[in-house]
Amino acid sequence: MSNPTAAILIIGNEILSGRTQDVNVNFIAKRLAALGIVLSEVRVVPDIPHRIIDATNALRAAYDQVFTTGGIGPTHDDITSECIAAAFGVPWEIHAETFAAMEAHIGKENFNAARQRMATLPRGAEPIKNSASLAPGFSIGNVHVMAGVPRIMQAMFEALEPVLPRGAPILMQSVYGIGILEGAIAKGLTAIQNRFPKLDLGSYPFRLAAGSGVAIVAKGTDAQALNAAIAQATTLIAAQGFEPVQGEPG
Amino acid sequence: MSNPTAAILIIGNEILSGRTQDVNVNFIAKRLAALGIVLSEVRVVPDIPHRIIDATNALRAAYDQVFTTGGIGPTHDDITSECIAAAFGVPWEIHAETFAAMEAHIGKENFNAARQRMATLPRGAEPIKNSASLAPGFSIGNVHVMAGVPRIMQAMFEALEPVLPRGAPILMQSVYGIGILEGAIAKGLTAIQNRFPKLDLGSYPFRLAAGSGVAIVAKGTDAQALNAAIAQATTLIAAQGFEPVQGEPG
Repeated sequence: MSNPTAAILIIGNEILSGRTQDVNVNFIAKRLAALGIVLSEVRVVPDIPHRIIDATNALRAAYDQVFTTGGIGPTHDDITSECIAAAFGVPWEIHAETFAAMEAHIGKENFNAARQRMATLPRGAEPIKNSASLAPGFSIGNVHVMAGVPRIMQAMFEALEPVLPRGAPILMQSVYGIGILEGAIAKGLTAIQNRFPKLDLGSYPFRLAAGSGVAIVAKGTDAQALNAAIAQATTLIAAQGFEPVQGEPG
Repeated sequence: MSNPTAAILIIGNEILSGRTQDVNVNFIAKRLAALGIVLSEVRVVPDIPHRIIDATNALRAAYDQVFTTGGIGPTHDDITSECIAAAFGVPWEIHAETFAAMEAHIGKENFNAARQRMATLPRGAEPIKNSASLAPGFSIGNVHVMAGVPRIMQAMFEALEPVLPRGAPILMQSVYGIGILEGAIAKGLTAIQNRFPKLDLGSYPFRLAAGSGVAIVAKGTDAQALNAAIAQATTLIAAQGFEPVQGEPG
């Protein structure tokens, strides 16, 4: 079975300006790995209609699932929803059920034009109801549109998770070699990677309280192959005269 | 004068798997804003040759400057350098000066094939010498290739900074309204944005120790317009009966 693929589209001037450190990619990446969905690309684009529309169409054509974050609030810079409608070539219109629920909760007198925009969805979209926000995200086709605020995005992802397609979970194992230099074990690592072509073997220099060194990370869906590859990496580290550490050293 | 544009290309399975929280985008974004370079796109792609090559060529055609991070170490998963050579259609070959410097430092007996890869650059590339790493990054055309390890990437950026083109610095000012809801001020914000079409006015809900509310952020190169727009946003918050706070509240 091949794993479904995914992309994340971050819509956010605040990420591109450096004002905000994105944390949504890391959250979604981990959750997708657990679901067996391969995150294959991330794009960050500004709050400009043709940029959002073009990126949405490129990513939904290239991957099985697309997750967007940002731009679904009530203010002038929240333009994701109408851009998604444009990307799909469908009208952007009041979603009756969402409109009624929001109006009942907010009260008719406070349910102004700005707030009504949050009850306006691309035709055919399915709201993503969630525990953190009255205004929903939504799914249309293979595109899932979520808030940019991490707490609200996470609640939307939780609500969405049960309906996502799944694959074999993508497992990760690592061994750390404190004192090891990448250049000394590169040849041995290449040999291990060649013996396990279905795994992704990564090599990452680290600096931790315990010291500097290299983390060898194996990723894949075959637990037995992962165990074997990490055992070989452990032997490789030990052969250099260093003590291998399973998992992150303190 | 129009500001130069830029994109960041993150080459990194470890970001897509969720193993690593990227912090390089935020660092580069802030530094580019200070240089007056508009960061217009970020992409994250896996360690797969055609993905790196295609993204490099798409971004270098679309933007004035491209910054890549990741994949320039000595191990099998470090393939950025040869992919950049392929993207530019030039040979990937020993860079004599870098080779000599690395060999002299590491010693002939330890300067193995893996380490020699770090002295192999696209023909015509200019090394980015830096204080953190013997192995350089490099620039070729409008593409600047840097390490993924934040400490080393930052040292490479410092070395690169003096030769980058500049524009009018992109300034940012903000005012915080604790207790404010976006939906209540959306109409007023739209009016302010319309009065200052050259500024980017953003509205960002926050939750801080001091309370929840909305941050109004104005961004642009015209300090006088920024002051005026933030003054109007301050009035808008005060008109709702809340105390505006300049800069981030505690």
